[in-house]
Amino acid sequence: MPDYHAPLRDMRFVMNEVLNVEQAFTDLGYEDCGSDTIDAVLDEAAKFCENVLSPLNQSGDREGCQWREDGVTTPTGFRDAYQQFIDNGWASISGPTEYGGMGLPNTLALAVSEMASTANWSWSMYPGLSKGCSNTIFAHGTQQQKDTYLPKLVSGEWTGTMCLTEPHCGSDLGMLRTKAEPRRDGTFAITGTKIFISAGEHDMTDNIVHIVLARLPDAPKGTKGISLFIVPKFLPNDQGEAGERNTVSCGSIEHKMGIKASATCVMNFDGATGFLIGPENRGLNCMFTFMNMARLGTAMQGLTSTELSYQGALKYAKERLQMRSLSGPKNASGPADPIIVHPDVRRMLLTQKAFGEGGRMLFYWLGLMEDQMLKAGNEADRKALDDLMGFMTPIAKAFMTETSIETTNLGMQIYGGHGYVAEWGMEQVVRDARIGTIYEGTTGIQAIDLLGRKVLASRGDLLRRFTKIVEAFCKDNADNPAVAPYIASLSKLLHKWGEVTMELGMKSMQNPEEAGAASVDYLMYSGYVVFGFMWARMALVADNAIKNGSDEGFYKAKLHTARFYFERILPRTEAHLRSMRSGAGNLMDLDTELFA
Amino acid sequence: MPDYHAPLRDMRFVMNEVLNVEQAFTDLGYEDCGSDTIDAVLDEAAKFCENVLSPLNQSGDREGCQWREDGVTTPTGFRDAYQQFIDNGWASISGPTEYGGMGLPNTLALAVSEMASTANWSWSMYPGLSKGCSNTIFAHGTQQQKDTYLPKLVSGEWTGTMCLTEPHCGSDLGMLRTKAEPRRDGTFAITGTKIFISAGEHDMTDNIVHIVLARLPDAPKGTKGISLFIVPKFLPNDQGEAGERNTVSCGSIEHKMGIKASATCVMNFDGATGFLIGPENRGLNCMFTFMNMARLGTAMQGLTSTELSYQGALKYAKERLQMRSLSGPKNASGPADPIIVHPDVRRMLLTQKAFGEGGRMLFYWLGLMEDQMLKAGNEADRKALDDLMGFMTPIAKAFMTETSIETTNLGMQIYGGHGYVAEWGMEQVVRDARIGTIYEGTTGIQAIDLLGRKVLASRGDLLRRFTKIVEAFCKDNADNPAVAPYIASLSKLLHKWGEVTMELGMKSMQNPEEAGAASVDYLMYSGYVVFGFMWARMALVADNAIKNGSDEGFYKAKLHTARFYFERILPRTEAHLRSMRSGAGNLMDLDTELFA
Repeated sequence: MPDYHAPLRDMRFVMNEVLNVEQAFTDLGYEDCGSDTIDAVLDEAAKFCENVLSPLNQSGDREGCQWREDGVTTPTGFRDAYQQFIDNGWASISGPTEYGGMGLPNTLALAVSEMASTANWSWSMYPGLSKGCSNTIFAHGTQQQKDTYLPKLVSGEWTGTMCLTEPHCGSDLGMLRTKAEPRRDGTFAITGTKIFISAGEHDMTDNIVHIVLARLPDAPKGTKGISLFIVPKFLPNDQGEAGERNTVSCGSIEHKMGIKASATCVMNFDGATGFLIGPENRGLNCMFTFMNMARLGTAMQGLTSTELSYQGALKYAKERLQMRSLSGPKNASGPADPIIVHPDVRRMLLTQKAFGEGGRMLFYWLGLMEDQMLKAGNEADRKALDDLMGFMTPIAKAFMTETSIETTNLGMQIYGGHGYVAEWGMEQVVRDARIGTIYEGTTGIQAIDLLGRKVLASRGDLLRRFTKIVEAFCKDNADNPAVAPYIASLSKLLHKWGEVTMELGMKSMQNPEEAGAASVDYLMYSGYVVFGFMWARMALVADNAIKNGSDEGFYKAKLHTARFYFERILPRTEAHLRSMRSGAGNLMDLDTELFA
Repeated sequence: MPDYHAPLRDMRFVMNEVLNVEQAFTDLGYEDCGSDTIDAVLDEAAKFCENVLSPLNQSGDREGCQWREDGVTTPTGFRDAYQQFIDNGWASISGPTEYGGMGLPNTLALAVSEMASTANWSWSMYPGLSKGCSNTIFAHGTQQQKDTYLPKLVSGEWTGTMCLTEPHCGSDLGMLRTKAEPRRDGTFAITGTKIFISAGEHDMTDNIVHIVLARLPDAPKGTKGISLFIVPKFLPNDQGEAGERNTVSCGSIEHKMGIKASATCVMNFDGATGFLIGPENRGLNCMFTFMNMARLGTAMQGLTSTELSYQGALKYAKERLQMRSLSGPKNASGPADPIIVHPDVRRMLLTQKAFGEGGRMLFYWLGLMEDQMLKAGNEADRKALDDLMGFMTPIAKAFMTETSIETTNLGMQIYGGHGYVAEWGMEQVVRDARIGTIYEGTTGIQAIDLLGRKVLASRGDLLRRFTKIVEAFCKDNADNPAVAPYIASLSKLLHKWGEVTMELGMKSMQNPEEAGAASVDYLMYSGYVVFGFMWARMALVADNAIKNGSDEGFYKAKLHTARFYFERILPRTEAHLRSMRSGAGNLMDLDTELFA
C-alpha cells in the first residue's frame, strides 16, 4: 500500500495562495482562526492520518467487517483509531460551539477530511456519515432534539447515519415504503428495510443515531409524502446517555468490491421508535442540505483516491528500472532507466496530477463557498452562493469521481503486473474509488440534476452565474502571457458551452429525451471546463510567485501541469460536444427488445 | 453473476454473413469443415460453456486457488470441467492431425475460446496458455520434441506455460537473468525465478510443460542473448509418460484483483533439466509466434468481458424499475419504468454493444487472417498477411482491453449500488477484465510497438496496407446511402491518420521522445478508426439483408449500433488527434524531481 504523505504544500498553496482563506475567515467573522491555528490543524491532522489511519488501510481491506447477530465488528485497530480521533477533538473542529464544537470554519474541517479520506477511505466513512446526521439535526431539529443528540454527535461519542435507500428504490426515492405510524406519545413506530447504510452498525461507539426517510399513513404518493425521523439505536435516557435498546438492527452487511472496512448495512426497522424531524412530508427538502454536503464529500473522494494512487505510482516510477530512455540513457550506471523517463509513464502521472490537484482546487473553492453561504449577511447573498453551489456540486461530484476511475487505473497501470497484485495496494485504490460514481447519486443522476434541474430549469441562469466568474477572470488577465493561451481556450469553450446549452434547451422542448441523451456528455464537458478554470487560476498564482522571485520548483510544476492539462486533457471537450449534439435518436430509436 | 448465453446469432453473423468463413475454409483446403461442422462445433461448445463453465465463474472467484508446498489446488469443479473439456475433444479441435488434433481451422477454435473465456475467464486461462506452449514446440521444436510433447499437449492431457517475466524485468526482457548451463548429456540446468506464470502449477493434469526464457553462459547481453528451453515438471520417460520429478516448483501464488481462479505462480527453477528449443540466443525471435497469438487472445478477452458485462447489464436494465421515462410512462401499470427507457442507460448499453460486437468482428477477421497466413501458398502472400497482422495485433490487443475497462465499468454502473456488491457478479467482471491492459505487454508497450516498430519503422508502409483495404471498401460502397455517411467519416479519418503519421515521423527524427509521447493516443485513434471500419462493414451486410427482404430485428439493431458508434463514439478520435499533436514538451519538460 502506498504510505500516505499529506500533500501539505499543495493544500497550503490552494488555501493560502489561491483562496487566501485566512482573510476569508476573518471576513466571515471567525476569530481565533489565523495562520497559526490553520497551520497547527493541518500539521497535527497530517500526523494523525499518516501515522494512525494510513497503516490501517490495507489491513482493513484484507480483514473487512464481520457481521454477527449482535452487531458488526470493524477491522483491528479501527476502534482505537476512532477513539484517538475523538479524544484529539478532530470530530468536532467545525461543530457548533454551543454543542461542544470548536466552531472553526468548515473549510478547515474539509482539510482534515481530505487527509483522513486519502489515508483510509473506509475508516473515514464512519465520522464522515455522522456529520450528515448532525448537520441535519442542527438544521431541522427541535431545540430538544438538538440538546439531546448534538453534544454526543459533535464530540463523536455517538455516530450517525442517513437511511434512504430501500431494496427496490435507490435513485427513485418516491417509491420508498418504510412506514411511520404515529403513537399516542408523539413518537412514531418505524417499520421497513433500508439497504446500503454506511456505518449503520459498528463497534466504535455506544450509540448510533439514524436519520430515516419514511412515510406517514395517508401521506401523498411519491417524493412529496416523505418525512424524516430520528431513530437512535439506543433511546437516550433522562441523563442523555444511551438507554433502552430500540428495535432497529443490522440484518447483514454487503460483500463489496472495495471499501471493505466500511460496514455497508441492511437495517431492519421493526416498529422502532422514531422522532419526527422537520415538517411532515417535507423530508426530502430537509435532506437537500445533507445531500449537497454528501455529494461534495464524494467529490472529495475522487481527489483523495487520485492523490493516493499518484503517490504510489510516482514512487514506483522513480524506482522501477525498465528499458532505456528513447533519447539516451538517463541512469547509465544502472541496468536500465527508471520508468519515469518514458513519455507515456509521464503522461499517466501528469494525468493523475492534473486531476488530483485540479480537484483539490475545486474542492476547497466549494468548501469556502459553503462557509460563505452559512455566514452570508443577507438572503440575496446566501441564495446567490447556494445557486452557484447547486450548479457546481453535481459537476464536482460526478466529474471528480468519473475521472478518479481513470486516474486510479492509471496509477495501477504504471505498476504493470505488480499493479494487479493485492500486496502493492494499488488495486485496492481502484476498488475503493469505484463506489464514487455510484453512491450519493450516480453520474447519470448528477447529470440530469445539472442539465435538467439546474441549467435548463433556470433557463441557463445558473450556468451564467458561473461563466460570468470565468469571463471576469479572463478579462482581468487577458494580457498576461503566462495564462493568455489558457484564457483564449477557456473563452472558446465558454462560448460553445452557451451555444450548446441553447440548442439543448430548444431541442428538449420538442423532445424531453434530448436532455437526458445529452446529459452525461454535458456534465463531462462542464467538468473539463471547470477544471480548466481551476488550472488557469493556479497557473496565474504560480506565475506571480515566480515573477516575485521565488525559485521554488513547486511553482514550475504547477505551471507545467496547467500546460499539460490544457494541451492534453482539455481537447476531450470536443468529443463530448459532438456526442451531445448528435441527438437523442441514436439512443432512443432502437426498440428495447432489439437490444439483444 | 450474469448467466452466460453464447451469442451464437452474432457469432454466426460475423463468421457466415460478413466473413463467409465456410468458403474461406474451402479455399484454404480444409475438408470436412462445411456448415454442418461449423454449426455443430458452435452449438456443442456453447452448451459446454453455458452449462459447465459459466456456473463455476463466480464460485471460482470466491474460492480462488490454494497454494501448498506440494502444489496448487484449483477451485471446486475446475478439474472436472477440464476433464470434460478434454474428453469432449475441445482442447484439440485445431491441433495438428499428426499429433492427434482434429486439424480444424484456427478460426473455429477461436470461437470455442471466445465462449469459454466469456463463461469463465479464469478457467479458460489453463487451456489458453497451453496452446502457446504447443504452438511454440510445433513451430520450433525438433522432431523428437514434437513427438514427445505434442500428443499430450494437443489432447490436453498435459498443459503448458510460457515463462518470461522475472521479478526485476517484465517489459524489458533484455534484463533477464535465469541461466541455462549446458550439461554433458546435451540437456541444460535451468536456474532462476520466474513470476506471473499463469497455470504454472495446478491440479488438473499429470504434467506441466514450461517454455522458459533463459541465458546460456557467455550469451550476448540484452535481448540477443536469450534462448528458449522446454522444462517439464515431470521428465517424460521412455513410454512418453510423466516420469521423474524435475527440480521446478511453485514458490507461491499471487493474490490478485481478479482472475482469482487462475493460478498466477512464482516458479523456481533450481537446476531444473531443460531442453533447448530453437537456435541458441534466438529465443525472443521464436517467441514472437507465441506473442502475437497471446496478444490476439488478450484482445479477445476484451470483447468477452464486454459481452458478459453487457448480458448482465441488459437483463437488469429491462427488469429494474426506477423512475418514469422523460417522455411519459412506458410501464404505466407498474410502479415505475424499467431503466432501459432512460437515454443515459441506453447510452451505456449501446457503448457496450458497439465495443463488444465491433471487437468480435475484428477478432474473427484477424483469426481468419491467421488461418490464411498459416496456409498461404507463397512467401509473398504469407509475408503480406503477417505484416498486416503485425500492424493490427497491437491495436486489437490494447484498444479492445482499454475499452473493456470502460465497458465493464459501465455494465456495473447500470446496476447502481448493486453493481458494487459481489453477489451480483458485475464487479467481478470489472476486476477480471482489468488485467487485460497489463499482461502480454501493457498498452504502453503495444503503442510503442505499433507506432515505432510497425508504422514508423516501415515508413508508413504497414499503415498503408490497412488503409488501402479501407479505401477500397469506401470506393466500392460510396454510392450506397446506407453506409455513405460512415464512408465519408472514415475517409476523413484516414486522411488525418496519414497526415499525423507523417508529422510524427518527421518530429521523431528530431526528437525520439515524440513517438513515445504520441504513442498511446495514436493507438487509440487507430483503434477507433479500425472499429469504424468494422461497423461500416457490418452495417453494409445488415443493410443488404434488409434489402433482400429480411425483417429480422437483429439487422435493425446492427444498423442502429453502427449509427450510434459513428455518432457518439467516433468523435473521440478528435481528442486523441489533438493530444498526440501537442508534442512531447508537455510531458518531458518537467524535471523528474518536480513531479512531487
